[in-house]
Amino acid sequence: MGQAEKMLKRLVESGLDCADDEKSLFAASVDNMRYSFLPRFVVRAKSGDDVEKTMRAAYDFEVPVTVRGSGTGCAGGCVPTLGGAVLDLSGIDFIEIDPVSRVAHVGAGAVTAHIDAKANGFGLFYAPDPSSHKYSSIGGNIACNAGGLRALKYGTTREHVLSLAAVLADGRKISCGLPLKKYSVGQNLRDMFIGSEGTLGIVTEAWLKLLPLPSAKTAALAYFDDDGSAFNGIERIMRANLAPCVLEFMDTETVACVRARNPGLSVPENAAAILAEFDGERNETLFQARKFAETLSPFSDAEFAVEDSAMAKLWEVRRSASQSMYELGDSKISQDIVLPNGVLRDFFSFYKDLGRSKKLATPVFGHAGDGNYHIHFMYDSSDAGARARALEAMDASIEKAVELGGAVSGEHGIGFLKSKYMPLQHGALELELMSSIKRLFDPKNILNPGKIYAPSDIEGLSPLKGLKLPWD
Amino acid sequence: MGQAEKMLKRLVESGLDCADDEKSLFAASVDNMRYSFLPRFVVRAKSGDDVEKTMRAAYDFEVPVTVRGSGTGCAGGCVPTLGGAVLDLSGIDFIEIDPVSRVAHVGAGAVTAHIDAKANGFGLFYAPDPSSHKYSSIGGNIACNAGGLRALKYGTTREHVLSLAAVLADGRKISCGLPLKKYSVGQNLRDMFIGSEGTLGIVTEAWLKLLPLPSAKTAALAYFDDDGSAFNGIERIMRANLAPCVLEFMDTETVACVRARNPGLSVPENAAAILAEFDGERNETLFQARKFAETLSPFSDAEFAVEDSAMAKLWEVRRSASQSMYELGDSKISQDIVLPNGVLRDFFSFYKDLGRSKKLATPVFGHAGDGNYHIHFMYDSSDAGARARALEAMDASIEKAVELGGAVSGEHGIGFLKSKYMPLQHGALELELMSSIKRLFDPKNILNPGKIYAPSDIEGLSPLKGLKLPWD
Repeated sequence: MGQAEKMLKRLVESGLDCADDEKSLFAASVDNMRYSFLPRFVVRAKSGDDVEKTMRAAYDFEVPVTVRGSGTGCAGGCVPTLGGAVLDLSGIDFIEIDPVSRVAHVGAGAVTAHIDAKANGFGLFYAPDPSSHKYSSIGGNIACNAGGLRALKYGTTREHVLSLAAVLADGRKISCGLPLKKYSVGQNLRDMFIGSEGTLGIVTEAWLKLLPLPSAKTAALAYFDDDGSAFNGIERIMRANLAPCVLEFMDTETVACVRARNPGLSVPENAAAILAEFDGERNETLFQARKFAETLSPFSDAEFAVEDSAMAKLWEVRRSASQSMYELGDSKISQDIVLPNGVLRDFFSFYKDLGRSKKLATPVFGHAGDGNYHIHFMYDSSDAGARARALEAMDASIEKAVELGGAVSGEHGIGFLKSKYMPLQHGALELELMSSIKRLFDPKNILNPGKIYAPSDIEGLSPLKGLKLPWD
Repeated sequence: MGQAEKMLKRLVESGLDCADDEKSLFAASVDNMRYSFLPRFVVRAKSGDDVEKTMRAAYDFEVPVTVRGSGTGCAGGCVPTLGGAVLDLSGIDFIEIDPVSRVAHVGAGAVTAHIDAKANGFGLFYAPDPSSHKYSSIGGNIACNAGGLRALKYGTTREHVLSLAAVLADGRKISCGLPLKKYSVGQNLRDMFIGSEGTLGIVTEAWLKLLPLPSAKTAALAYFDDDGSAFNGIERIMRANLAPCVLEFMDTETVACVRARNPGLSVPENAAAILAEFDGERNETLFQARKFAETLSPFSDAEFAVEDSAMAKLWEVRRSASQSMYELGDSKISQDIVLPNGVLRDFFSFYKDLGRSKKLATPVFGHAGDGNYHIHFMYDSSDAGARARALEAMDASIEKAVELGGAVSGEHGIGFLKSKYMPLQHGALELELMSSIKRLFDPKNILNPGKIYAPSDIEGLSPLKGLKLPWD
């Protein structure tokens, strides 16, 4: 009997919910990027106790454990590239709200949007809103420090986690901090676990900061003649005394796709776009939306909306961006780089030139203001050399972004799909320190091995075609 | 020649600005708590380079290094309890503002209020405002994860540090992250340094998040018949859809002191108080202040003010709290505990009873909403047994706060004055992990040794009497 089999046997004898049927293994083999690696078995944890038992067994038998929530990740972070066990936390999904301290106590498997909805019942909200928030689990959000559209005003997941409980590689449970708004009691262990993608420990529960729900929203949409004018617009907005909660950029290629896919939306020809949303008290949001329009008036006539239905119409332009770009090819290589606001022109001129020279479409949308851009190289899978060209072009783009002071990923994380970029982003000393900390926390290298720390060669791999996931 | 002398010799030969005259040594021997420990010498760094040189020498000769900025700390964190070198970073005080990315790039010695003032010139502000902000250095704020009055709305220092540069124990320089609003590129080293009080590395520069400056403020002050009614008020405010940036509580003992010291302020007799401030657009702040008054109407008639001079008058009640409590004794033992909002009555009834039984006055003020309360036991130094009684009472109070789910410190940190409370706050596993990380970062234990990790016996120590510090 192999080590994984011995581990499975012990867990089954301990009464844990385990599965190794084909369907369960396949479901646990992919995330949103659709690269499939089958685990030996799946453990469906119902409590932190189950997680402790699983890790004690994994530690004893030295079996790799890859944690998964909803599987909405975009970097292959929850994919068991080295087999072993997948530990599914989606069953640990409790949500409790303390309205007087404005804190949510949640299980790692709780769905992000469900937490927000439950908080709304108390006049509160949970700010981080990754675009997968209707499906994503909070544990996954914590694992990759998820961002979202409102991060410009409210920050990313990290800023909203007050404290957490985690299970270490050897199955011991650790508490990190307390659910308090201020806490300065020695070394901060909490933030080690946030963004480390299950490689240092397994977060089982968290206490989250909730904010008073704004009473009103106003959305505004501005079209520009070209991308450069939109960049001018972004710069003017950042220099103005404006605090949008959302500031979304769509380049001319993206807007053209949206127009082609949605004839009903009356999207102009040859235009870039910026969508903004302001939240707060009604007077304040209107004041800000008017100032937004005024700030952009040299470049654009912005329209704005306060009614839900009218706002939804403006939002539809942004919401359909991701799907619409399949107008330009049936496949894509995409990344979520971050750029300082001062280098947008430099970067995008390099990137667009590269697309032209490689004969690849280059639609972009992104969270302007916080500089997080989703860049794409679109291609047709029928074009034999296109995927290799797209991968090459992406490598060059990432290199350029980093050279200009940018980041490899703003909110998706590294997983195994981006681990080759780690030495580009970090110096040797930083990588050495990260590896030392990894060894300290996980001496047997059983926590999500094959991710982040070791470069993966992904050229030979292909994502599955035609696989329908719940959020598609 | 001893090790410290060898180190000093090398640094002088390298052209560093070092001093070992009596005045320099004494100035580097204390923080705001006034326990004095003399170093062997002081190094005044002008750049990160100077810090690297200092640490390389300290590492070679195994000499303890204690970093200091302005010395406004309240836990003895920058006091060289084991002698060795004090490394003064107040000369690294550059401040550069990038208004398009809304980021400040600052040296560790930059004064908090100077950063804010420079940002104000671009219509931006730096949110964390520890009460020492006119003197405190940003490096010190980062070292203890300083909070402040606006933390309820804006969070503590940690949430405003985008990235930082630090020097490790062996003198190597490390970069942690980038000055970007989103960043998810592997393990987070940045947050290891924030709040660890110079025990893992020396932060030399930081990139800080700036926010759009609110256009208006409204202050509101409410008096209550007793502390219990004020606690009811806090609970109602937290349950209401209100987002004050400041929410300050003063108990009846504190308000009585303020009344006695400031006859001009027309403070009522026998009253507790809550001071709130709302920031944003004028309509919004007025709307919130009216709602604040309405929310408290069962207990209190709140008054509010929008003009600077009228606001200053309300603020004066809070601003004079700290000095006024010397009405109750010439000495104090104080801590900055944090409490969940649900346990205020339980904790304060225990604490007030304790004060009565120990014959010590117990004035309290604090940052309600985020639960960070500055508790005091006042005594007269002429009363021989009083200091011992106050220390004993504080130990019991801290124990009670932790038992009720609270924290030993919200914003001051641990230093050496609170290290005995670490095992109260953290479990054995958490302490073991912290020590392992400390050893990994500082194998020779030369970075601020004697703080946080090892309990100090402070009973035999006394703060200096009559020492005037710049901020007094």
